Amino acid sequence: MRKTLEFMMYDWLKVQELTRRDRYAAHSRETFDSVLDVSEKIALEQFQPLNRLTDEQEPEYVNGAVKLPDGVGQALKAYADSGLLAAGHNEGVGGMQLPYVIDMAANTFFAFNSISLSAYAMLTYANANLLMAHGSEAQKNAFALPQLQGRYFGTMCLSEPTAGSSLGDITTKAVPDGDDYLDCGLGPRYKIKGSKMWISGAEHDLTENIIHLVLAKIPDDCGQLPAGPKGISLFVVPKFLVEENGGITSTRNDVMLIGLNHKLGYRGIPNTLLSFGENNDAIGYRIGEPGQGLQLMFHMMNEARINIGMGAAMLGYAGYKASLDYARDRRQGHLRSNKGTQRGNAQIKLIEHPDVKRMLLAQKSFSEGALGLVLYCAHLIDEKRTGTDDQKNRAHALLELLTPIAKSWPSEWCLEANSLAIQVLGGSGYTRDFPVEQYWRDNRLNMIHEGTHGIQALDLLGRKVRQNDGAAFNLWVSEVMQTIEQAHEHADLKGFAQDLDVQLQHLIAATQKSQQDDMFEMSLAHATPYMQAFGHIVIAWLWLQVTLAAYGSDTTNEAFVAGKRSAMQYFYAYELARAHGWLNLILDADDAVATMQDDWF
Amino acid sequence: MRKTLEFMMYDWLKVQELTRRDRYAAHSRETFDSVLDVSEKIALEQFQPLNRLTDEQEPEYVNGAVKLPDGVGQALKAYADSGLLAAGHNEGVGGMQLPYVIDMAANTFFAFNSISLSAYAMLTYANANLLMAHGSEAQKNAFALPQLQGRYFGTMCLSEPTAGSSLGDITTKAVPDGDDYLDCGLGPRYKIKGSKMWISGAEHDLTENIIHLVLAKIPDDCGQLPAGPKGISLFVVPKFLVEENGGITSTRNDVMLIGLNHKLGYRGIPNTLLSFGENNDAIGYRIGEPGQGLQLMFHMMNEARINIGMGAAMLGYAGYKASLDYARDRRQGHLRSNKGTQRGNAQIKLIEHPDVKRMLLAQKSFSEGALGLVLYCAHLIDEKRTGTDDQKNRAHALLELLTPIAKSWPSEWCLEANSLAIQVLGGSGYTRDFPVEQYWRDNRLNMIHEGTHGIQALDLLGRKVRQNDGAAFNLWVSEVMQTIEQAHEHADLKGFAQDLDVQLQHLIAATQKSQQDDMFEMSLAHATPYMQAFGHIVIAWLWLQVTLAAYGSDTTNEAFVAGKRSAMQYFYAYELARAHGWLNLILDADDAVATMQDDWF
Repeated sequence: MRKTLEFMMYDWLKVQELTRRDRYAAHSRETFDSVLDVSEKIALEQFQPLNRLTDEQEPEYVNGAVKLPDGVGQALKAYADSGLLAAGHNEGVGGMQLPYVIDMAANTFFAFNSISLSAYAMLTYANANLLMAHGSEAQKNAFALPQLQGRYFGTMCLSEPTAGSSLGDITTKAVPDGDDYLDCGLGPRYKIKGSKMWISGAEHDLTENIIHLVLAKIPDDCGQLPAGPKGISLFVVPKFLVEENGGITSTRNDVMLIGLNHKLGYRGIPNTLLSFGENNDAIGYRIGEPGQGLQLMFHMMNEARINIGMGAAMLGYAGYKASLDYARDRRQGHLRSNKGTQRGNAQIKLIEHPDVKRMLLAQKSFSEGALGLVLYCAHLIDEKRTGTDDQKNRAHALLELLTPIAKSWPSEWCLEANSLAIQVLGGSGYTRDFPVEQYWRDNRLNMIHEGTHGIQALDLLGRKVRQNDGAAFNLWVSEVMQTIEQAHEHADLKGFAQDLDVQLQHLIAATQKSQQDDMFEMSLAHATPYMQAFGHIVIAWLWLQVTLAAYGSDTTNEAFVAGKRSAMQYFYAYELARAHGWLNLILDADDAVATMQDDWF
Repeated sequence: MRKTLEFMMYDWLKVQELTRRDRYAAHSRETFDSVLDVSEKIALEQFQPLNRLTDEQEPEYVNGAVKLPDGVGQALKAYADSGLLAAGHNEGVGGMQLPYVIDMAANTFFAFNSISLSAYAMLTYANANLLMAHGSEAQKNAFALPQLQGRYFGTMCLSEPTAGSSLGDITTKAVPDGDDYLDCGLGPRYKIKGSKMWISGAEHDLTENIIHLVLAKIPDDCGQLPAGPKGISLFVVPKFLVEENGGITSTRNDVMLIGLNHKLGYRGIPNTLLSFGENNDAIGYRIGEPGQGLQLMFHMMNEARINIGMGAAMLGYAGYKASLDYARDRRQGHLRSNKGTQRGNAQIKLIEHPDVKRMLLAQKSFSEGALGLVLYCAHLIDEKRTGTDDQKNRAHALLELLTPIAKSWPSEWCLEANSLAIQVLGGSGYTRDFPVEQYWRDNRLNMIHEGTHGIQALDLLGRKVRQNDGAAFNLWVSEVMQTIEQAHEHADLKGFAQDLDVQLQHLIAATQKSQQDDMFEMSLAHATPYMQAFGHIVIAWLWLQVTLAAYGSDTTNEAFVAGKRSAMQYFYAYELARAHGWLNLILDADDAVATMQDDWF
């Protein structure tokens, strides 16, 4: 993976050019590479050996606490000691001022080697990043900096037992704590009361403290909770109370573990049901203004969504690598021709069988395609942060549009890649003696958490492509057209450019049709297939960019370039063609789902 | 499910007409229904409560034996006592002379409620059926009848550690046991020596004896094993030796459990590595002639393959049912229109969300489509056994062609259905508090065992569509054309008939092209997509038949008919269109896989 990762960073995205910007001026390709070296080493030495162990010894509920297998604390300490939690932040707060794309590239190794251990880190840096962007100075000092140092870990507390996808319906209350609640140095002080469900990493003794970011509603004067998502506010709620100066106390806040969810996979991190303020007071400090909660939370959610996509891509890659190794090693069967089976003395390697090669090439096209997508988005984050105004606006618009794709596409197709990895190994793949079945189980979470597939699809079709009269969508279309034009200059790539153009035109037509007044409700039934088509077109577009970069690179060898081109060809031949079928549901206004009635099932 | 099952049996396949045949003359719809009643009751009472338990307490290796959870023995005894193991056999040997399609329909309830417990039964009746068809009288008495009575259970021992899919490479030896080896009343007596891998149900103390059907090679005079699949012979090898009169002894044959495979799912039945003749003699009795082994084994394998398809269909159905119940019960979110979210006081039911309805309708189209396919094949088995010569020939040809589809299609698409069931439940679906994650894990085996997906594809493209100058394929095409003609008579179905015709023509073209001399090897890379397209066209054809039957039925209500038609419409709109894309790989002679090299990965 390292070779493809570096190729995508330096030959395709040219991230080394970021070092020309003031913020990254102290960096060079050498410092970037050394971050990758250290990360790869720690991940392999500390995370990899725990991946199966944490699956087998899942978190245990013991008297309101969580018992984790030995070694988890040490592995996460090694991660924290690497400095990656603060990687993107200013040197003044202990950061490395690394571009986000380097930060993400470094984190790929941890996700590759243990997705569930890497989730503690992801929640922590995304939590701290929100606080650093939107918290007060006191909140940054008390809650964010200790996370950047790895002394505290973080969580995000959104869902409740009766409000999962439907966050507007949460009922957790935040009531001002005394008449002087506004006088608290850590921000307006509230008593939080309610339950939160599906909260990862919310109880453990790995760190001195745990910082919960909690969505809750502030009742009006009549004690009524404001309706809908606009009534949501955001609070920071520590496990142990802190002094106004930020010092930790030994006083436990009333955030209590009620139970653990017993999961199909992703077991290295506990997933919990929490109660706030059930017995005593659960003190929380408001971030931002009342009613801004969901908007602020999106700072963390958008980052988390792209990182979910990265994690899914890495699980896909890990399965690809494991099945590739197996297929190169295991001998089974003989070659066939139209004259029958060519029975020699020795069996041939699995990889020599066309159907096995097909499954490996599919995994390559999915996992490398997904990696390309999330790196592309991470690079946009850098553009948005440090680019010119034009670059910032462009990056912001593309990120808004592509975030649901970056979250959903790897989650769906790298899961499919993991299923193919199992298939390459056959019976062995179905046993726990090999890692591929765990990758498949772990990856199944990614279409569910951080906004389900359906939620991402509604975000894309119902909001993102419509915003500002479709400005982001039109901008993206023009970017795809540029790639198509570039590809037309290579005789070898012309056919692919044409195929992409055809599918892009279908997408444009379906997007327009979905916005007709009489089509909107019917289109909701087709939101997921629309997103699947959109995702496939995005990946096909990026594969074409990657192949163009490979053609233009002087650092890669022929086999590497041929591999990229073949993976692209595979994706176009086997996958891209599907886009039209998905889009036809809107173009033909198919009503199978819309007309279906409950009692017809 | 019962309603759809009965509709498919009586309104669509008209299996009650079988009672006009001599063999089934004692039966009527009433006796058929009472078999279903009893089966449904036993499955629900005895199998269902053990399904999660046998997943959590997987088989344990203890001193060469297998420890199973309490209750497994009682549940399987209840199954055996129902008489289903012998259901299809003559009354003279304790059977019920039931048509195969009724037998399968009865077994659907057991697979629905516990796929892994039902596997003991399936292996046992398929083992006994082979012996009843190809064994000597003594072999039937000694080995088959006790299985039909449920006193013994059976296995199939094909794969070896170095020969899984490549059976021609097995190295288990069968050496004549003494000069008088031909004088044994139980059949020619051999000493078996070798290892067998992936053998389900091969060790337990549920029954008095275990009957292994073992593939092995008889060395030539120089001690060499004959090469390839034609050198394989078939042996019956009991766990405890039996007298020539069939009486069981207390002498353990040298069939020893070396270890258990720790599986992702399907855990109620142990999967084993066995050694034969490692320490003492493992005595086996040859069935049929030397070299006939694989051909005879196909009697069991073909039956098992259709039953694998049935099991996959039932797992799909079970997930569909569980997620449908959940979606009708759980409230979450609000309706949306192009004016925004319609926020009422109460959240709406999950099933009211278009995207959830889509996922339920997909599951319905997959699981009912798969059920239709396996019932159709079971009915063909009856036609082959008891029809006129013309009916027999037709049924034989169609079965040969459709068996790889009946095995592969449900395995792939009802797994997808199970993934959608998880998605409907969201976070809950990812926990072990609900059954859907287990269905998904259990179902993942079905693309692997009894011939992997790739093996089925090679069987279909490399053999079945080519046999007898494509006679079976051409026959099937003519059957599809008949259905298309019938559908053309309904204004409402014309469009579907046309869509099916278009895809059928693509399939015919791709089938022809794949047989061109210069295309054969390249086609191997496309064998699986070809099978996927073929399967989708088969299911679309059967959905059209089912809908025609629903239109013509006077026993169903409007909602039932509308549900069938919607599921068909869903399948055509969302799925059938994919066939062309898969077939284009052959039609366009895409060479992405064929040209891919090991060092390009």
